[in-house]
Amino acid sequence: MTKFVNYSTPIMKKSALEAFDTALVLAPHTDDGELGCGGTIHQLIELGKKVVYVAFSTCEESVPEGFPKDILHHEVKAATAVLGIREENLQILNYKVRHFPTHRQEILEDLVRLNKEFKPDLVFCPSSYDVHQDHNAICNEAKRAFKNTTLLGYEFIWNNYEFSSQCFVDLSEENIAKKVAAMEEYKSQSKRLYAKDKLIRGAANYRGLQCGLEYAETFEVMRWIIR
Amino acid sequence: MTKFVNYSTPIMKKSALEAFDTALVLAPHTDDGELGCGGTIHQLIELGKKVVYVAFSTCEESVPEGFPKDILHHEVKAATAVLGIREENLQILNYKVRHFPTHRQEILEDLVRLNKEFKPDLVFCPSSYDVHQDHNAICNEAKRAFKNTTLLGYEFIWNNYEFSSQCFVDLSEENIAKKVAAMEEYKSQSKRLYAKDKLIRGAANYRGLQCGLEYAETFEVMRWIIR
Amino acid sequence: MTKFVNYSTPIMKKSALEAFDTALVLAPHTDDGELGCGGTIHQLIELGKKVVYVAFSTCEESVPEGFPKDILHHEVKAATAVLGIREENLQILNYKVRHFPTHRQEILEDLVRLNKEFKPDLVFCPSSYDVHQDHNAICNEAKRAFKNTTLLGYEFIWNNYEFSSQCFVDLSEENIAKKVAAMEEYKSQSKRLYAKDKLIRGAANYRGLQCGLEYAETFEVMRWIIR
Amino acid sequence: MTKFVNYSTPIMKKSALEAFDTALVLAPHTDDGELGCGGTIHQLIELGKKVVYVAFSTCEESVPEGFPKDILHHEVKAATAVLGIREENLQILNYKVRHFPTHRQEILEDLVRLNKEFKPDLVFCPSSYDVHQDHNAICNEAKRAFKNTTLLGYEFIWNNYEFSSQCFVDLSEENIAKKVAAMEEYKSQSKRLYAKDKLIRGAANYRGLQCGLEYAETFEVMRWIIR
Amino acid sequence: MTKFVNYSTPIMKKSALEAFDTALVLAPHTDDGELGCGGTIHQLIELGKKVVYVAFSTCEESVPEGFPKDILHHEVKAATAVLGIREENLQILNYKVRHFPTHRQEILEDLVRLNKEFKPDLVFCPSSYDVHQDHNAICNEAKRAFKNTTLLGYEFIWNNYEFSSQCFVDLSEENIAKKVAAMEEYKSQSKRLYAKDKLIRGAANYRGLQCGLEYAETFEVMRWIIR
Amino acid sequence: MTKFVNYSTPIMKKSALEAFDTALVLAPHTDDGELGCGGTIHQLIELGKKVVYVAFSTCEESVPEGFPKDILHHEVKAATAVLGIREENLQILNYKVRHFPTHRQEILEDLVRLNKEFKPDLVFCPSSYDVHQDHNAICNEAKRAFKNTTLLGYEFIWNNYEFSSQCFVDLSEENIAKKVAAMEEYKSQSKRLYAKDKLIRGAANYRGLQCGLEYAETFEVMRWIIR
Repeated sequence: MTKFVNYSTPIMKKSALEAFDTALVLAPHTDDGELGCGGTIHQLIELGKKVVYVAFSTCEESVPEGFPKDILHHEVKAATAVLGIREENLQILNYKVRHFPTHRQEILEDLVRLNKEFKPDLVFCPSSYDVHQDHNAICNEAKRAFKNTTLLGYEFIWNNYEFSSQCFVDLSEENIAKKVAAMEEYKSQSKRLYAKDKLIRGAANYRGLQCGLEYAETFEVMRWIIR
Repeated sequence: MTKFVNYSTPIMKKSALEAFDTALVLAPHTDDGELGCGGTIHQLIELGKKVVYVAFSTCEESVPEGFPKDILHHEVKAATAVLGIREENLQILNYKVRHFPTHRQEILEDLVRLNKEFKPDLVFCPSSYDVHQDHNAICNEAKRAFKNTTLLGYEFIWNNYEFSSQCFVDLSEENIAKKVAAMEEYKSQSKRLYAKDKLIRGAANYRGLQCGLEYAETFEVMRWIIR
Repeated sequence: MTKFVNYSTPIMKKSALEAFDTALVLAPHTDDGELGCGGTIHQLIELGKKVVYVAFSTCEESVPEGFPKDILHHEVKAATAVLGIREENLQILNYKVRHFPTHRQEILEDLVRLNKEFKPDLVFCPSSYDVHQDHNAICNEAKRAFKNTTLLGYEFIWNNYEFSSQCFVDLSEENIAKKVAAMEEYKSQSKRLYAKDKLIRGAANYRGLQCGLEYAETFEVMRWIIR
Repeated sequence: MTKFVNYSTPIMKKSALEAFDTALVLAPHTDDGELGCGGTIHQLIELGKKVVYVAFSTCEESVPEGFPKDILHHEVKAATAVLGIREENLQILNYKVRHFPTHRQEILEDLVRLNKEFKPDLVFCPSSYDVHQDHNAICNEAKRAFKNTTLLGYEFIWNNYEFSSQCFVDLSEENIAKKVAAMEEYKSQSKRLYAKDKLIRGAANYRGLQCGLEYAETFEVMRWIIR
Repeated sequence: MTKFVNYSTPIMKKSALEAFDTALVLAPHTDDGELGCGGTIHQLIELGKKVVYVAFSTCEESVPEGFPKDILHHEVKAATAVLGIREENLQILNYKVRHFPTHRQEILEDLVRLNKEFKPDLVFCPSSYDVHQDHNAICNEAKRAFKNTTLLGYEFIWNNYEFSSQCFVDLSEENIAKKVAAMEEYKSQSKRLYAKDKLIRGAANYRGLQCGLEYAETFEVMRWIIR
Repeated sequence: MTKFVNYSTPIMKKSALEAFDTALVLAPHTDDGELGCGGTIHQLIELGKKVVYVAFSTCEESVPEGFPKDILHHEVKAATAVLGIREENLQILNYKVRHFPTHRQEILEDLVRLNKEFKPDLVFCPSSYDVHQDHNAICNEAKRAFKNTTLLGYEFIWNNYEFSSQCFVDLSEENIAKKVAAMEEYKSQSKRLYAKDKLIRGAANYRGLQCGLEYAETFEVMRWIIR
């Protein structure tokens, strides 16, 4: 019988996120990435990983009265900086809010370009359960562009009729605090989530409860490539 | 605006499997674990990880004429040794083949015990698409026992009417060769897979093709816990 | 062309729960009904509806050390009373915890009996996404016994890998407070939900967020009969 | 132990449809609403409820030879009047038949407008199983516009590969007779359903059989809000 | 460029059912096979095919008062004879009604035996959507025993919450008349389907409507082997 | 009791494909039909059946440098001829590669025209699991155009996240050899499948393994009409 051979000295893992080098966050609109996976982004940054954030629209048509049209351009810079994303890793594109389905081929070409440019090994996008037309368009094209990459769909509580919570990321107090702080940079959106701290912590508690953690973000696993 | 802080020096990843410390392989019958995830087991062993293999039956009722009743007991030892699993990490249980559903509560209690004993952070079991009654029983109980652990369902081509190939593990030539060699230890089962080398490599090629790899094993992702 | 005829004077609705006369709550173990739909139970009681609560086990095998074996018998009485359920509408059965699948036919016969006895037009049971073997057994049999009755599956966050949140019940502060108070009657289970108030309100907030409400309980709709 | 308090005097329910005040029926083409839920519409009208009917196209391109182009405009008026819908509650829009997917954003904006205008608490649209492109477009946009409203998908037997019959409405002889009479107003469509009475009653019998009723209409439950 | 070669002279098909030699009908209880696929059975018989009918229970426990315990034994003989099944191709087994799940392994062994005995190339069983415990048990075991055979699940309208109508068989007036006549042999079950002719024709009309036929039976396609 | 009457003399089946007269293969791009169902096409041709092949694009925008823009026009002619398809049964349409969703209504109208022109009783298209936008568009429209025809979705391994392998066609050595030979006519695509023989045989072996055959092609069954 073959004898056991110890091939290598194992390194006890520090965090499962060590398994990735470069993450790409696809945010249909500014703030979607922070809300969907802000805690996980912060944890990746803590580990020294490169995180690229792409916002596909600054939603000029939806800015509330009294704010400059480009307010979200500034807010997304501030919010992603709070999470620790470097400014050169933030890209802001110019698709017209609510009209993404019309531009699906251009979006796909943008994703193919981003894939070549950054060679991410971890991609976050809205989940396949998200019914918003712009979120849905980004998810569909991501499934085409990133068939050979780990691809996770973040939860967007308002937009789901159902959800499959397959993946959970354990968040620290520091991660959740930064997520709240990032969201608070969106002053123009303050009506949307009137009590950010309470709701963000509440949702993270709820998902944590599902798998025995204090705080968690949950994801649909579309593809997970282990190499 | 907050300035970027480099929290830590990133370690470029070596293999995504570094993210785990201890894997538990649940094999309803001897050889199911090798066939379902033998290449991945070998890759874990190469990285120095602990792999525990539990066979729930040695199928004494199904041993072909001319072989001793306990032949599979010996064969599973040889096969798991080929993959590099230590003898002390092999457990052989004694459930009656084809009758697992009747013993589901005992099986669940075994799984709870194994969870306490080994604290695995990665568990492999038959997928939820597997229609064989014994495979199905192991999968159902695993979903109860390992709700807070990464839980992957391996493919068993004969037993599936459909499959969701969410996770792929990139296998090296060495991994696939060891998988074939392990399977060849099952002399008593030689009728089942008459041309092991060709079929095992063929299946790994097929799944590799799906995500741009030479050889791959594929898994259903039931749960993936990142901490 | 036919002219419009006003058939009747409409009564502006007070609550959609007015549409039901008698609700039947199926709790595999004591406290499952309160946790799954305690707020909705309280709302039905407020409207003067009859609510029948059936616990299928008092889990004598699982009572923590230091408590009498029949402690859950007393606690479920107290908890359901807090919600306003009349003592004559509480039934406590004696199935062995964790072994319900073995008794599925007896459970089905109990459900057929309950259907004849109370003629409920609204039934609550664990959802079809719940993986716990006892919860799963109750749900499966309920789908057999109540094919012609409105049948809703309550959420049990620990036991779901996915969930389809089709139905939401809007809860008042009073409803949620009573749910918390009912849960607090389970002193023997205090380890399970160490911070009941925070977690119960957090979960109700989370589900409320999904459809624009302050607090909500969510349900899978298996069947909805309108007559 | 808390004593039982009888909060209110219950009103024995008359019909579960009492739970709604205003229904909105979304018909991609004239006659889809009558065929999909004509019996239920009539029952709502009998209870004195407000029913708003919106036809998104009069299908001028599909009118058979020998009929004026605007014939369906007249027929939908007559048919909805038969069901008892007030003329001021009928809206006829002008989307081009078979081309709805191109106009999805305009359709969504129409739905948002209808929601503001009528504040419906019950919305009927084609089900998510309906493969016709125009039906599918209306259903997709309805799931975006009415996330916080009870939303039911009606069955359209020709267009479904599968169906989930979650909700059943018990229809009286009067309801079914009015449904047949409404359909008979569509003289220009007589080829489509050559024996309306037989087929409509046959389908209602079939679905009734499924849940112990004489006649029923069945619906997919996308969302059910109880408040 | 290769030139076209006419390999053989095609035989214009007479009926798609010519593609099969031997059909096996699995009826959990007597009359389930006739109700589920009686018209299709008759069509196979017309084409001279061999049809084997296996009833797993004569439901002695459920026979209405006033009838001899073995009445269903006689009725199933008469009913299958009406369809043209030869007496030697009828097998009546003796499982206890409502308790099939307890006997799943014996049932599987019966199916394996039937497969060896008759080598069917077409198998009918209850669909995977059927919630009745005995129907469900037969379907589950059939998926294990007949993985390499065409396997169709028949519709049982009372027992389905949803259905996927993938396959339709076009029935002649003669086929439907024989189905009705076969069902009428079950005098002891006359309460169950009080107006057999109307309901059976109604259901066949309804399913026919779905694909442009006068009468049809519909089936779920679990497996279709073309060789 | 009715006596058995032998209605006809059965013809022992030769091949289940005898059940069809005319097959229509929908290939979004040239070579998709050969790769998806080339072995089955060849088997139909061997039986003397009519096979119509429609390519929706010659992908002029994707032709590799060094090849004439219309190279795929020539290659598809050669490849389909290898399989035995007559030149008059090959139609080449001119949709712009990657932009099919924009042209969905025109595609649907083409399918309606093809249905009238050829009256196929067997249609092959990409499966509903295929995520490529052009494949997806063809599948969606085929489900609209061919509701009353047997409709099978072929597997396209690169484009699927999951697959339901319901139908298998048993391929002979001759069938698989012709499939490989047909694929080899696509010289301009040689980078895509660098080792055609090995990969095509490997995939057919893999799917054959699933149902006890040497070589098989697998299909999703969307609709199967038996008349």
